[in-house]
Amino acid sequence: MTEASTIRIRVWNEYVHETRGDQVVVANYPDGIHQVVAAGLRERLGDRASVTTATLQDPEHGLTEEALAETDVLFWWGHIAHDQVDDVVVQRVVDHVHAGMGLVVLHSGHYSKVFKRLMGTTCSLKWRNDGERELVWTVKPGHPIAQGVPHPIRIERQEMYGEFFDIPVPDEEIFLSTFEGGEVFRSGVAYQRGLGRVFYFSPGDQEYPVYHHHDIRTVLANAARWAAPRSERHTLTADEHPRGWFEA
Amino acid sequence: MTEASTIRIRVWNEYVHETRGDQVVVANYPDGIHQVVAAGLRERLGDRASVTTATLQDPEHGLTEEALAETDVLFWWGHIAHDQVDDVVVQRVVDHVHAGMGLVVLHSGHYSKVFKRLMGTTCSLKWRNDGERELVWTVKPGHPIAQGVPHPIRIERQEMYGEFFDIPVPDEEIFLSTFEGGEVFRSGVAYQRGLGRVFYFSPGDQEYPVYHHHDIRTVLANAARWAAPRSERHTLTADEHPRGWFEA
Amino acid sequence: MTEASTIRIRVWNEYVHETRGDQVVVANYPDGIHQVVAAGLRERLGDRASVTTATLQDPEHGLTEEALAETDVLFWWGHIAHDQVDDVVVQRVVDHVHAGMGLVVLHSGHYSKVFKRLMGTTCSLKWRNDGERELVWTVKPGHPIAQGVPHPIRIERQEMYGEFFDIPVPDEEIFLSTFEGGEVFRSGVAYQRGLGRVFYFSPGDQEYPVYHHHDIRTVLANAARWAAPRSERHTLTADEHPRGWFEA
Amino acid sequence: MTEASTIRIRVWNEYVHETRGDQVVVANYPDGIHQVVAAGLRERLGDRASVTTATLQDPEHGLTEEALAETDVLFWWGHIAHDQVDDVVVQRVVDHVHAGMGLVVLHSGHYSKVFKRLMGTTCSLKWRNDGERELVWTVKPGHPIAQGVPHPIRIERQEMYGEFFDIPVPDEEIFLSTFEGGEVFRSGVAYQRGLGRVFYFSPGDQEYPVYHHHDIRTVLANAARWAAPRSERHTLTADEHPRGWFEA
Repeated sequence: MTEASTIRIRVWNEYVHETRGDQVVVANYPDGIHQVVAAGLRERLGDRASVTTATLQDPEHGLTEEALAETDVLFWWGHIAHDQVDDVVVQRVVDHVHAGMGLVVLHSGHYSKVFKRLMGTTCSLKWRNDGERELVWTVKPGHPIAQGVPHPIRIERQEMYGEFFDIPVPDEEIFLSTFEGGEVFRSGVAYQRGLGRVFYFSPGDQEYPVYHHHDIRTVLANAARWAAPRSERHTLTADEHPRGWFEA
Repeated sequence: MTEASTIRIRVWNEYVHETRGDQVVVANYPDGIHQVVAAGLRERLGDRASVTTATLQDPEHGLTEEALAETDVLFWWGHIAHDQVDDVVVQRVVDHVHAGMGLVVLHSGHYSKVFKRLMGTTCSLKWRNDGERELVWTVKPGHPIAQGVPHPIRIERQEMYGEFFDIPVPDEEIFLSTFEGGEVFRSGVAYQRGLGRVFYFSPGDQEYPVYHHHDIRTVLANAARWAAPRSERHTLTADEHPRGWFEA
Repeated sequence: MTEASTIRIRVWNEYVHETRGDQVVVANYPDGIHQVVAAGLRERLGDRASVTTATLQDPEHGLTEEALAETDVLFWWGHIAHDQVDDVVVQRVVDHVHAGMGLVVLHSGHYSKVFKRLMGTTCSLKWRNDGERELVWTVKPGHPIAQGVPHPIRIERQEMYGEFFDIPVPDEEIFLSTFEGGEVFRSGVAYQRGLGRVFYFSPGDQEYPVYHHHDIRTVLANAARWAAPRSERHTLTADEHPRGWFEA
Repeated sequence: MTEASTIRIRVWNEYVHETRGDQVVVANYPDGIHQVVAAGLRERLGDRASVTTATLQDPEHGLTEEALAETDVLFWWGHIAHDQVDDVVVQRVVDHVHAGMGLVVLHSGHYSKVFKRLMGTTCSLKWRNDGERELVWTVKPGHPIAQGVPHPIRIERQEMYGEFFDIPVPDEEIFLSTFEGGEVFRSGVAYQRGLGRVFYFSPGDQEYPVYHHHDIRTVLANAARWAAPRSERHTLTADEHPRGWFEA
């Protein structure tokens, strides 16, 4: 894995809203949210990335051991079907993050089994869906994920996610969002878990065309590059040290 | 110094706006901002604290070596006279923070020499004075400084301070503020510098009666208790270790 | 819950080594590790705490809903029976931490289900048991958990725990340990998870009388006081905001 | 500035020990420490970097406005002549860091005016020079600065730097060192100050050939790449927001 390598990205979506005939969702994402997220990543990263998708309905949700072994960065979108994700697959994803796979969790994925397992908190938050303006402010201007976006990013209509957001103190707080109603949200936060990098980004909802937004696409492409592993996948295990092992 | 001790608080104010006949300021703070801050601390802490004041106009700005040695927590308010603070006094205050004195920096004190020296950054920020509503949200609910205040604290009219606020990553981020214009600000942040605890809190301005506000007074009283030193004042110095010094 | 309240502490131990006739363990902890930890807490905290114990063998491991509701701070010692802890009890403990209960995890408890669930990492580490000298250095001297102990704390014989310790970046790093073999370990680290405070402290092993050590007892008593909740137990949940909810 | 750009590195040395005829220092660094550090960077970075040097004796210490404007990453080595560095130059360096220039501070540079100004603490530490073995352990294995080095790095003979090291809580703690005497030190720590990245790395002393060490050279080359700015140099200033400025 070198910086020049192609990043292998897999975009996962529960893909339930879109197939239930919800006209608003279908209008925004006719082939599924994953396809729009994937298209945005391809648009921005070009031949620096190869982007595939997977959904809940695929065998093993499309997240077999083989699939994950060939994934550098996994994007995760889920909302109303978190409980349908098999615990075996959840553990497999978590294991790969620990071993170095990058993970980008989107919007309502805050309540996914995978994210809650990696955070160790309830990941609860306050919310209200009134189609309000969201402003996304950069509070870590030197961070690679914040490159190339205006301050603030302006999203005309969005669902409100507000504090208190029950997450661990972020390793890096990159974006803060405000909403017309006056609420605030830590909307872009980064963590390391084992050897893997995790980025949570709240903008994006099935009812609004946020993943078509120019600046949001920039953030997601930046996040893919940031989350890509710097070294070979490696599972951390407890090993007894022979006496003087570091002498070798 | 034990938890049962009386906290010796000194509230410092440049005391310039109030003596220049600015009617808005005089209406809010007829005897000076320091007197209102001190009154709030006395109101909330009662006999758990002894509160005195000092101003720029006092000899050595009221911050002699003797005065600081008898101060557990120093509150700092300044705005248009930062440059008039003697560098010798600035260094003395910084030395006492390093040795364990608590420091609470208020509002426009972000640009004081003392705060900039302790932060190591420019401490610049964005601002706009339109008398807008500020909401102060708690993002670290277990923190002692956030005890007893609503979520959010509501301030009807305030000057806007907004990101990007050029401070080091806070040790603890306790409050985030939003403003009617949509801006966000890290309005309550905590640091350790040497053995001293530093809390910056942005609500409060000479043109608005913020230091009369019930919840703001609660925060300031909480901050005084949090910032009070846990042990004797002690100046850290470089010492050569005699071989095996830790054996003693 | 006020600072003046008595802290209700429960010390949990898997209590397996001590009942299997391991002579070294029995010599150090004839009635179980939990009894020595509890005795140390009683010795230091006196009437500021009420200390009870519970073990794996108790019904529901002694950690019923009622028991946890009456526990301010739970101490956890486990080593070879982590897998025997019922997942229902694990979830119950985690829920109480999220709602505000303090948790102090000791030594080999790094591999307990409870700790791994709260951390979201493998919690793996390197180890070697050669009965070497451990030195515990304070790197956050103002922290309440580090009050009253020498720099370093010296433990004559201990098992070595070494880096890389696969934990999230600590909210607060308080102690670092070194061992005769040259290894280093982040031996005292603090986190917030939900409303609860978590402290991990590595010194302490069934084969060495570490929990009789004067300074280690000081640390554990400090940790109990630090981890005690500042407010009522409260379960965080996702709530829809009615429009303008903060106006109320 | 893109990732593909050549990094412009300037290695600064007070260059006093080497010119005073100290035979041990001259044996290690006959043309000055800066030349050996520069050689190591050239060896590792090849045409990805252009490396120049500057010393205290140069006009304006070789750190004119023009020189700094053409520097992406500044390395700093000083020991016995910190006080001779002109305050005007110190402020200029600090301003450039705030505006985005990277800074790598080496060993005894912990007491340089530049580093103390950026940290806001005393930067004091404990030390003892007995030519002992230092082991440098990685505690953030995914970090770019830690790529390609063994765990631990072994330095046969070194001066001991030990805790308590009076620095702010690091943004990122990458390396911890232990010494034969049992001490511990946070030997590789990273900060952001304004738009600039700062890395402090303690291994390296005039009396030992540490800057010839294979792994230390790897760390310094990694640090140069990490500290290089991601965007144009930009001075942060306080600006009044026109009402609704973000609408533009």
